[in-house]
Parts: sequence; structure tokens; C-alpha cells
Amino acid sequence: MKIALAQINPTVGDIIANTAAIRQFIDQAARDGAQLVIFPELALSGYPPKDLLLKPQFIDDCQSALADLAQCCTDCAALVGLPCRHQGQTGRDLHNAVALLNHQKIESVYYKLLLPTYDVFDESRYFEPARSQQIVNFHGKKLGLTICEDIWAQPHVHSRDLYETKPLADLAATGAEMVINVSASPFVLGKHDFRRELFSRQCREYQLPLFYVNQVGGNDELIFDGNSCAFDSTGTLIAQAKDFTEDLLIIDLDNPPSSRCESPRRDTESIQQALVLGLRDYVRKCGFKTVVLGLSGGIDSAVTAALAAQALGAENVTGVAMPSRYSSDHSLADAEQLAKNLGIGYLTIPIEPAHAALENLLAPAFADCSPDITEENLQARVRGNLLMALSNKFNHLVLTTGNKSELAVGYCTLYGDMAGGLALISDVPKTMVYQLARQINHDRELIPESTITKPPSAELRPDQLDQDSLPPYDKLDEILQRYVEQEQSAAQITTAGFDPQTTRRVINLVDRNEYKRQQAAPGLKVTSRAFGFGRRLPIAQNYQPYKKT
Amino acid sequence: MKIALAQINPTVGDIIANTAAIRQFIDQAARDGAQLVIFPELALSGYPPKDLLLKPQFIDDCQSALADLAQCCTDCAALVGLPCRHQGQTGRDLHNAVALLNHQKIESVYYKLLLPTYDVFDESRYFEPARSQQIVNFHGKKLGLTICEDIWAQPHVHSRDLYETKPLADLAATGAEMVINVSASPFVLGKHDFRRELFSRQCREYQLPLFYVNQVGGNDELIFDGNSCAFDSTGTLIAQAKDFTEDLLIIDLDNPPSSRCESPRRDTESIQQALVLGLRDYVRKCGFKTVVLGLSGGIDSAVTAALAAQALGAENVTGVAMPSRYSSDHSLADAEQLAKNLGIGYLTIPIEPAHAALENLLAPAFADCSPDITEENLQARVRGNLLMALSNKFNHLVLTTGNKSELAVGYCTLYGDMAGGLALISDVPKTMVYQLARQINHDRELIPESTITKPPSAELRPDQLDQDSLPPYDKLDEILQRYVEQEQSAAQITTAGFDPQTTRRVINLVDRNEYKRQQAAPGLKVTSRAFGFGRRLPIAQNYQPYKKT
Repeated sequence: MKIALAQINPTVGDIIANTAAIRQFIDQAARDGAQLVIFPELALSGYPPKDLLLKPQFIDDCQSALADLAQCCTDCAALVGLPCRHQGQTGRDLHNAVALLNHQKIESVYYKLLLPTYDVFDESRYFEPARSQQIVNFHGKKLGLTICEDIWAQPHVHSRDLYETKPLADLAATGAEMVINVSASPFVLGKHDFRRELFSRQCREYQLPLFYVNQVGGNDELIFDGNSCAFDSTGTLIAQAKDFTEDLLIIDLDNPPSSRCESPRRDTESIQQALVLGLRDYVRKCGFKTVVLGLSGGIDSAVTAALAAQALGAENVTGVAMPSRYSSDHSLADAEQLAKNLGIGYLTIPIEPAHAALENLLAPAFADCSPDITEENLQARVRGNLLMALSNKFNHLVLTTGNKSELAVGYCTLYGDMAGGLALISDVPKTMVYQLARQINHDRELIPESTITKPPSAELRPDQLDQDSLPPYDKLDEILQRYVEQEQSAAQITTAGFDPQTTRRVINLVDRNEYKRQQAAPGLKVTSRAFGFGRRLPIAQNYQPYKKT
Repeated sequence: MKIALAQINPTVGDIIANTAAIRQFIDQAARDGAQLVIFPELALSGYPPKDLLLKPQFIDDCQSALADLAQCCTDCAALVGLPCRHQGQTGRDLHNAVALLNHQKIESVYYKLLLPTYDVFDESRYFEPARSQQIVNFHGKKLGLTICEDIWAQPHVHSRDLYETKPLADLAATGAEMVINVSASPFVLGKHDFRRELFSRQCREYQLPLFYVNQVGGNDELIFDGNSCAFDSTGTLIAQAKDFTEDLLIIDLDNPPSSRCESPRRDTESIQQALVLGLRDYVRKCGFKTVVLGLSGGIDSAVTAALAAQALGAENVTGVAMPSRYSSDHSLADAEQLAKNLGIGYLTIPIEPAHAALENLLAPAFADCSPDITEENLQARVRGNLLMALSNKFNHLVLTTGNKSELAVGYCTLYGDMAGGLALISDVPKTMVYQLARQINHDRELIPESTITKPPSAELRPDQLDQDSLPPYDKLDEILQRYVEQEQSAAQITTAGFDPQTTRRVINLVDRNEYKRQQAAPGLKVTSRAFGFGRRLPIAQNYQPYKKT
């Protein structure tokens, strides 16, 4: 028997296009001699469909599309993920399901047992869990069918053991001869190795081979890395699909491949690939072709522009330098050199006339006031206005260029540099932005060296440097990692050796700037805890460590 | 025995202040001769605490505060809601709990059974459900303790019967003599009557009296209306706390009050009270005292200004008229008259110089382009810049003034009129904005009559009227109600008699403008389905009704 792993890139909600893609992969798998082709979790709807699932028509449409797909399954059967109605009297409306299409019929339907409801996952909002695990009998084989989280029910995966049910143990006890896992498992830095190790260990533990099919592509914040693969029952990797692109991987069970060496990607390389895919798909799936962004001469906009050129082609990227009275000559020169190196479009619009006009309009109201952050924000907002005007006029999507460290502490202007459709590097800490810049310059200098080496500055007042307002980025990023990703308290962070005053200040900045982040453009998630859909903090809150009063 | 229902207004996360408030209410209840005082759901943390619950220190702090509160319970026992650690080996970290404090000890702790995970509720993200219902033995009485959703497990509440467990039936079977329900049940138009009817019916069904304590106050999007109350075992309302304000309601079980007539509020009156409370609390709990908003002379900004003056005092509200070359004289006159009627601060800043400066800056890039929405958005964004500058300089919170109909179809400018800290009427459909205006003018003309009667216009180009771009608001609001609140499909809406082309156009506008709403300021929820935290749609999606290709 030959099994095909169909690593497709569905668009959320686009049942028509997803059905067409699934049909093509079924046909190709049949041509390649496969008896069974396996698609990712919720392949028909795309993952995550979110509240599209609350539309009854959407569920009906998935069912109609499934019936049509069944007609294509003549020579090759297919396992296709989709949301299905729950038929029981009590409980949620839906199941996260996989249908077996064979002999031009929907032969059977299987449901997910474990429903992740943490971080970016909201599955308990929509789905009713399966009551028990089921075995798929196919071509004389007993296939143990699992959906994503079903094989992540391990105490070491979460801080505690979330689930009583252990699907793999149950399947092994029921006589499964192999495990199939259909997934939509988003990219997170380091997760690939973790996943490999988890899968391999489980194959060894239950002495079962595993066939894992992951979705690929970007859907809003989430980037799915693909990396579909197969392990034998000793836990040895025997087949491996591409990462960050569609693929169809055929495995001949009667003549299985032997051990396969992986050449692992470096972290920065993975992040670069992930961001390029996430950006390309967001732009395409939103119906755009081109992007525009502000070029300050600094490293964040340089990295953003370089990734955009790689994702979309230089001809689809326009960089705009918008110098103010505080901009340095070297910034403008660096921006221009970057645009030249990348071959992207380049515009210069000095903001002084609009900046001055706004200052004059506000002068009566601001009489007797000293300059403060207000005047700095004005400049950033004029730039936001100009980029949005270019977006409106030419149908470019605006990329914002802020990094995670800035967004964390609010070192950014709402409706100013935060204005845009996608925040490409908003989950990349500043220290990692530098690594990305080096990675981008690996073969030749795309980002001017001076952009990388000069001290970071917002250039919103004379002689301003980031380090005047913020702790050094290496320290800041470590504190943020502990506070945001690990949920450590101020006490824990200072015990780990960080300055108490700096720690408290950073924590206060993070908490106080929640209002800005809730109005930020969506950002691509690459770490275990990104700002955005997976981090849900109140704005009007006042948590301070408790003391008896 | 006397029972006290303590309807408090906690601030999310502010354990220190919430503990102090709980202590005051315990003392007052004791002075009033109560043996038991009951607080709302998660009173110590405030509801909803969201991802503050993921901070281990936060849970520890709640526990410390509880221990301190127990010390206050000498004469009067207390039931206090808080998040508690789940001690079991498997499952989520926390319980949504209520502790009985008595004789200066934490006597026992009870857990919520039914965890709402729909709309704005995410409880399965954090909490493990109780395994079974428990009876509180207190002063020789068997109290059946329930937490919010536990008494909403009725098939008629949701579109289907979500829960297998029926806590009230179990409690009645276990010999409970009365039911206590501690809640954090947000305001939704029409919910008050529904709640009353539901509670009364359940008292009759199980022949048990009910004591219901609800949180009051605004926490981000959600407004809790209070309305704590008691029913006897025949389902008759016997006691009723105030709505939209803190209250302590004492009920003498040995000498219970008899039937109590409610004088129900009209819908517009309820919405007005809800918005005033939600605004006042958002401003206060975010640490602001004053607000600023643009006054266009139109009805949306007039209603917003009037509500702000009522919530915060006229002296804490500044209205800013920002006329452009397209503004009519009557708009400016209406804005000024409104400010005068309300007694709020009033500024005029004509935007022409900044508007012209931006146009000139863009002229080279826009050579050969015809005017379009770009030029309209520019004006809105200059106004956004000015309001944000006033906010930055004087620490005013900016109120945005858009209504739900506009936000639904994207008839608003991102970073322009959408710029601000709170979208006061963003869940109020335009037709209801008119009703609110009439309600506000009930006693005397605060909003100029001409503001209410003139046809709505954005005044961003000559002779522009809303109705040039949009269907009439009464039709639009009906379609939106069906599409957004009821999740009806285009086919269902046209079957109900709406024009197919208009219906499809409205649906497309709603879908296409999701990106704007995800960057909108938080808005106060007053309908069953508000844009915001409770409606989670993908941006990069392409759902169209399925057709076989």
C-alpha cells in the first residue's frame, strides 16, 4: 500500500478554492499510485476558521463540498478534515472531524478527542469532543486516526497534564497498526525539534509507525510550517516533506524508506522562512499584490523591507523615506542605499510642511505647554497618514516595522508607526532582529552595514537614542522573555539577578501599554507567546502584587 | 437569619482595592445584622480577569487576600468569589471558586460546574469544572451554591442544550433548601427581563427560593448591570437591588418581604444607563479623569458628548470642532450649540492648513490620479492627529463617536475618526442612536433639533450624504441584525424579503472591513453580539457560499 501525505495551503473560509486544491492533490496521489491520501486538519475550511464556524451555512457548505470530493475518490481514498455537525442532543454544535472518502462515498467520519483551548486555540468554543477513539479499517489495515492535539496529550508538553484521555494508549490497546495524525500545528521557534522528539518517543513507546500531515501557509497571525513526516515503529524518521511550501509525500508501506537524515535549519533561517511565507500569504489571501512601508534608515524597517522583497518580489515593494527636521543625513542615505540594494521602489516625502502645519494648528491650545511626547507622536502620525494615503490610492498594503521589544514597552506611536495592515516583525525581539539582519546579509550586503552598527534612534527629537528611554536591548529582551513568555513575577525576575527598579519599570510599561497593542495591526507569531490573539489581557486593570493594607 | 447581597464594583486585577471594598461590605452587612453576606463571581479578582489568570503570582495573591479577609469575618460570614488552584493531577490549573469565610477561617471552597466558552466568555481556557455540586451547610440551612452559568443550563437559553449536567436539578435532589447564585452577568439589551423570567421559572420548577448577586460596573467592553435580587419558592420577586450602581441588599429570611413590583426601564433608558456606567468606569479604571472628542455637528458625536457629560461631568469633557473646506456652516453652529447646551469645553481647530500641506506633500506621487476615498480619509486622519495630540498633551482619553452600523460596513476611517481610547456607541446601531438622542432630549433640548433631523453626512466631499453610499439606515440595521447577530446567510435574508443585491453588498462590506474592526478602539457591548472580543473572525479569509465548480 502507498500512502500520500498532502501538505496543502488552504485559505481560511475559501471552501471553493480549498476543494479544488484537495481535488488536485487526490488526482496527483492517484497518478502516483497511492491508495490513500491524507490531508491536514480542517483542510476544507482552512485552519483556524474561527467564528466562520458559527455560520450554519458555512457548515452546510463544507458538507456539500465533501460530498462533491467523494465523487473524485475512485482509485485513491482520501482522509479530509472539515467541521461537521454534532448529532447528539446535548453539547456544542460541531465536531472537528476527518472524513474517509472511498469508492465515491463518504465512508465514515471520525472526531477529534482533545480540543486545545489555550494560547491562540479556542476549540472548546466550537467543538464537542469525540466520546472515544476509533480505528479506521482500510485495505486490511487498522489505522489509528488522530487529529493534532490528540497526540500531544503528554505531561511534558504543557506545564501540567491537561487531559485524562490518552488517545495513543487507547489506540494501541485497541490494536491499531499505525497512527495517522492530521494537524494544523503553527510554527513556533524551536517547536520543530520538540515535535520530532515527541513523535519519535511516542512511536517507540507504542511501537507504532506514525504518519503526520501538517497544514502549510500563513493564515492571519499563524504560520504553518508543513514539515509533514513519517516515522517507523522504532521512532526513526523515514520520510520528510518540505517546510514552508506545499508538498505531496508518497510512502510505500511495502517498501518503506529507511532512516532519513534531516539537515536542520538554523533558528534565524527558520524565522526568515516563516516570516516570508506568512507575509506572502497574508498579502495574497487579503487580495493585495503590493506593499508600502516607511524606511527610516534603521534596522527594523530595513529587515522588514528585505523580507518583503524576498516574499513578494522587489517590484511589489515601495519604501518611503519621510525625513523630518530631526532626521540625520546618514539615515536618509542608509534608507536610499537599502532601497537600491533591494531593488525596491523608493520615494522621499519630507514631512516638515505637514508637521509644521499641525504644530501651528495646535499652538493656541498648547500655549504655555512644554514640548513632550506629544510633539514626537505628531511626526510619527504624519508619516502614518502619508503611508495610508499611498495605500488608499495605490492599493498597497502598509507594513508596520516595529519589533516585539518596542511593542512590549509601548515604544511606538498608535496611528503613527503602528498604522498598517500587517506587523511583520512584531513578534521578533530586537536582539533577534539583529540576528535576522545578519542572516539576510549572509550572501551579500543588502542591509547597509551602518544600519546594523549604529545605535538605534527614533529621531523624533534632537540627539535621541533608544537607550535614553529603555534599558539596553539585551537586558530588556531577557526581562520581557521572562515576563511575557514565561509569566514570571517581578520577584522571580529580580531573584534571577535583574535590577529590581528596571524590572518593575519594564513590567509597568508592558502592562500600561496593553491599550496600544489591542489596536495594533495583526503580527506574525514566531515565539511561544506573541502579542495578539493568543495573549488576552484586560486594558482597564490594575494588578499590583498584593500587600495587606 | 439575615442574608446580605453585596453588589460591588470591582476593578479587574486590583486585588488590593477589591479586598478593601469586600471588607467594607462585610463590616456594613455585620452592622446591619446579617449572618451571611454574598459577593459576586470572582469578586476578588474582578470579572473577567482574562490572562491575568495565567500569572501564578496573581493566583497566590488572591489566596493571600482571601486569608486576610477571613480575619474580618467574626460576626458575619461571607461567600467570596475568586480563582483557586485546581489540586487534581490532571486538567486545567484553576477553578472558578467561591470560598465560605466564617469564624475568621476559610471554612470551605466550592467550584463552578458549567464554564461558559462562547461569545465574550473564555472560561474553558482557564478553569477545570467541579466534579459535582455541593451543598453549603450554614446555620442549620442547606444552601445550594451555584456560580453564574450553573443556573443557565436550560435548553431555551442557548440555541441547543450545551450541558449534560443540570446543577439545579442535582441540588434539589440533594436536599438544598435555597439556591444562591453568585454571578458576573453582563448587560445585554433585553437580558434583564429574560433573566427574571428564567429565575422565576426555575424557582417554581424546583420549589426553591433564589438569591442572586451580580457584579456591577464596567470592565473594558463589558458592563455589569447589577440587578441582584431574591425570589421566593413560588417564583415571586421579593427583593431587588439597584441597577447600574453598587448596593447592599439585606433580606430577613425569618420575616421575608412579600412580592415586589418592578418598574421596568425602557430600552433606551437602560442603554443610556449602561453606557454612562461603562464609560465612567473605563475612564476611571484606566486612570483618566477627562475626555476629548470631535464634534462634527452630527448625531453620533452629539450623543457621545451628551453621555460623556452625564458620566463624567461637563467640566471633564472637551468637544473639538475641526471644520474642513467641506464643512457646512450649520454643522459648526450645531456643534457649538451642543457644547453650550451641555456646558462642556469647546475648541475650534480648522484643519485646512494641515489638510492642504498633506495634499501638497502627496501631489507628486498622486500626479495623474483622480480624487477618491484617499482624499476623504486624509481629512479624517488630520482630525485624528489633532485629537490624539490634545490627548497626549492634556491626558484626556479620546472618545470615538462611530456607531455600530458604520463600523459594520466600514463607513469610518482607520486612524481617523476611529482613533481613540473608547468607542462609546460602537455597539449601538444608527437607528438606536436616534432613539438615544430623543431619550437624552427627554427633559430639555440638549442635542440641537437640527442635529437630529438633518440627513446624516460625513462632509468629506461636497454635498456628500451617508445615503449616497449606504442603504437607508432602517433597512441596513435590519440586514445587519440578521447577518451579525443572528448569523443568517444571504439566502435567508433575501428569503425574508430584503433585496438580494443590497443584501450581498452589505454582507461583503461587513466581511471586507474586518481588518478595520480588529484595530478599532474597544467598544461597550450592549447587544447580544458586539464587534470586539466576542466576535472572532479571520481577516485573510474568503468565504463565499459553496458552488460546485
